[in-house]
Amino acid sequence: MNVEQEGEKRVVEKLARGLTSARSVKVKAGEDDCASTSLAGKQLVQTTDIMLRKTHFPKKMSYEQIGMKIAAANLSDLAAMGAEPLTLLIAFGVPPTLEQNQLKRIMSGVSKTCKEHSCSYVGGDTKKARELTLCGSATGVVNSEKELLKRTNAKPGDIVCLTGSVGNAACGLLILIENPRIATKLKNKLLPAFTHPKARTREARKLAQMKARIAAMDITDGVFYTCSEIARASGVGMDLESGKLPLSKELLEFAEKTGKPLMKLLSYGEDYELVVTVPEKKLKAAAKKTRLYPIGRVSKKKGVRLDGKTLSARGYDAFKSRA
Amino acid sequence: MNVEQEGEKRVVEKLARGLTSARSVKVKAGEDDCASTSLAGKQLVQTTDIMLRKTHFPKKMSYEQIGMKIAAANLSDLAAMGAEPLTLLIAFGVPPTLEQNQLKRIMSGVSKTCKEHSCSYVGGDTKKARELTLCGSATGVVNSEKELLKRTNAKPGDIVCLTGSVGNAACGLLILIENPRIATKLKNKLLPAFTHPKARTREARKLAQMKARIAAMDITDGVFYTCSEIARASGVGMDLESGKLPLSKELLEFAEKTGKPLMKLLSYGEDYELVVTVPEKKLKAAAKKTRLYPIGRVSKKKGVRLDGKTLSARGYDAFKSRA
Repeated sequence: MNVEQEGEKRVVEKLARGLTSARSVKVKAGEDDCASTSLAGKQLVQTTDIMLRKTHFPKKMSYEQIGMKIAAANLSDLAAMGAEPLTLLIAFGVPPTLEQNQLKRIMSGVSKTCKEHSCSYVGGDTKKARELTLCGSATGVVNSEKELLKRTNAKPGDIVCLTGSVGNAACGLLILIENPRIATKLKNKLLPAFTHPKARTREARKLAQMKARIAAMDITDGVFYTCSEIARASGVGMDLESGKLPLSKELLEFAEKTGKPLMKLLSYGEDYELVVTVPEKKLKAAAKKTRLYPIGRVSKKKGVRLDGKTLSARGYDAFKSRA
Repeated sequence: MNVEQEGEKRVVEKLARGLTSARSVKVKAGEDDCASTSLAGKQLVQTTDIMLRKTHFPKKMSYEQIGMKIAAANLSDLAAMGAEPLTLLIAFGVPPTLEQNQLKRIMSGVSKTCKEHSCSYVGGDTKKARELTLCGSATGVVNSEKELLKRTNAKPGDIVCLTGSVGNAACGLLILIENPRIATKLKNKLLPAFTHPKARTREARKLAQMKARIAAMDITDGVFYTCSEIARASGVGMDLESGKLPLSKELLEFAEKTGKPLMKLLSYGEDYELVVTVPEKKLKAAAKKTRLYPIGRVSKKKGVRLDGKTLSARGYDAFKSRA
C-alpha cells in the first residue's frame, strides 16, 4: 500500500509509535500538535512544518506572504500547545533559478511574523531543490506540564469554543486563485485571512497560564476535522451548533455573491484560529482572558455532531483529494 | 543575481544578518553550526538540515541508510557545538507513490541513529512533494556558553586536529555510484563511511566539558573548506601538514587501485569527523579524553596553507558544481 492510499495522518501516526523516547519526553511523536520535553524545570515544546510550492503556495502569493505563512504555520502549532515562542529555524530547498531578491523577500516575511510573536529567528539551511520547499522548526516553552493545552484534555461537559471566525481563509484562497467578480472592498477584507494569517500565540498563552485542563488545536485542517481529532484523542464526542459558529459578515456576503456552498467554505481549513475545550466552571474566567466563541459541548457519546447530525471525520489530508 | 550564481553559503549568511534575535540568543543565525539560546540556566543548541533525493541520496542508498544519514547530519551539527543531543524532529516531503514500507525503513534508520546518540525522536510532519525531501531539526544542550565549541574560538598557536580519518566517505560514494573493480573486502570497509556515517557527539561532548576555548566544525563539506571556515570566523589562518592527515590504509589502496587523485578524495567531504582547534596547553588533556590527530597549527597570518601552499577556500557548495 502506498502513502497516497493510506493517507498522511495515519502513516505518520503509525511510524511514530514505539520510537526512541527518553523519560524527559512528556508528549511524544505523533501524540499532539508538538512534542514536549522536560529541561531544567521547564517544558520545551517543539514542532516542525514543511510546505512546498505546488501544494501550499498558490502562484499569486507574494514571496513575503510565503515567508509569513511558513512562520505562522509553525507558530500556530506552538499556540495549540499554549507555549510561548522562543526560536524558529527555517530550512530552504531552493530551485537554482530563484532570484536572491525573492529569497530575501521570503526571509523578510519570516522575520516580520517572528517579530509579531516575539520569536527569535535563529538559523536555517539552504539546499538545491526542484521545487521551492520551506521547512520550519519552532521551539517554545511552558513553565509546567499543567500549562500544556493537550488534545487529550477534553472531558464530557466541557465547552467547545473557537478563538475567532471560521471560513475566511477559504474565501481568501478562492479570491486568489479564481478571482471571482465581487467588490474589491470585500476581496481586500478576506484575502489577508489566507495570505497573512495570524497565529494565536498570545491568546493561547493566556489560556495556558490558567492551568485549567484546556485542550487546543488549530483549525488549519478544517474546524470539523479539528473537533473530531480532539474528540478522538480525548476519547469523547462533541455536539456542535451551526448557529453558534462565528462567521464574518464578509464570509456570508462572499458565499451569497459567489454561490459557494457555506459548508465547503467552513470545512476547508487554512484559518489559524484555535478550537479549545474549556471546563464549564472555568469558561467565564477564560473568556475574560481572551475572546472565545462557544460553539458546542463535549459529550460522552463519541463522534462529532453538528445540529444533531454526525459529521465525517474527514478533514484535510495531504495525500487525499478533498471531498 | 540568482542563487546559483551567488552560491548558497553567502546567500544564507547575507539573509541571516540583522534578523530578529532576543538577548537570550547567544549564537545567532548564520554565525555557527547551530544557534544557541539561553533557557533556564542552560544553553539550547539548535540546527536544521534539509536533504533531497536527487542531491543527497544516490539511487543505490537503501531507505534505512537515507534515514540514518539525515539524522547523522543533524546530530553532527550538534557535535560541532559540543552539545548533548536532546531531541530530533523530521519533516518528510513524500512523493505520493512512495511505499509505506519504504517510509517505514527511513524511520527505522532515523530511529537507529537516534538510539546510538541517546537522542529522542519526538515528531515530524508529512506533506506531498515531487521529490523525496527530509528535513531534520535537532536540539541539544550545553551547561554554559563556555562549553560551546564555537567557530570563533581559534587563536594563533592553537593545534588543529581531526577526530578521525578523512576521505573514506568519498571512496564510499564512488563505490556506490561507479562500482569500480576493486576487492569486495575493500568495498565493504569503505562503503559504511558514506552510507552509515557516525556523528561525533560523544567525542565532542568530552571536549566541550573541558571549557577550554576549543573551536569545532564537521568536515561534511570537505576538510579544507572546514579549516578555512574556522580560520575566517576566528580571524586567523592555519598551516597544515599533508603528512599528518590521518588516512586509512583502505583509502590509500582505493586511490592506488582506481587512480583517483588523492587530493580530490580528501577535499570531497561527506566524512562526519570534526576539525577542532585546541590551545596547545590543553592538547594533552584533550587527547586523553578522545582520540585527536594533530594536522597543523593556527597562525596569525590569514589563509589556510597545506605544506606552505595556500589552499583555495572552495569546499562543497550546494549551488556550485565541484571543481
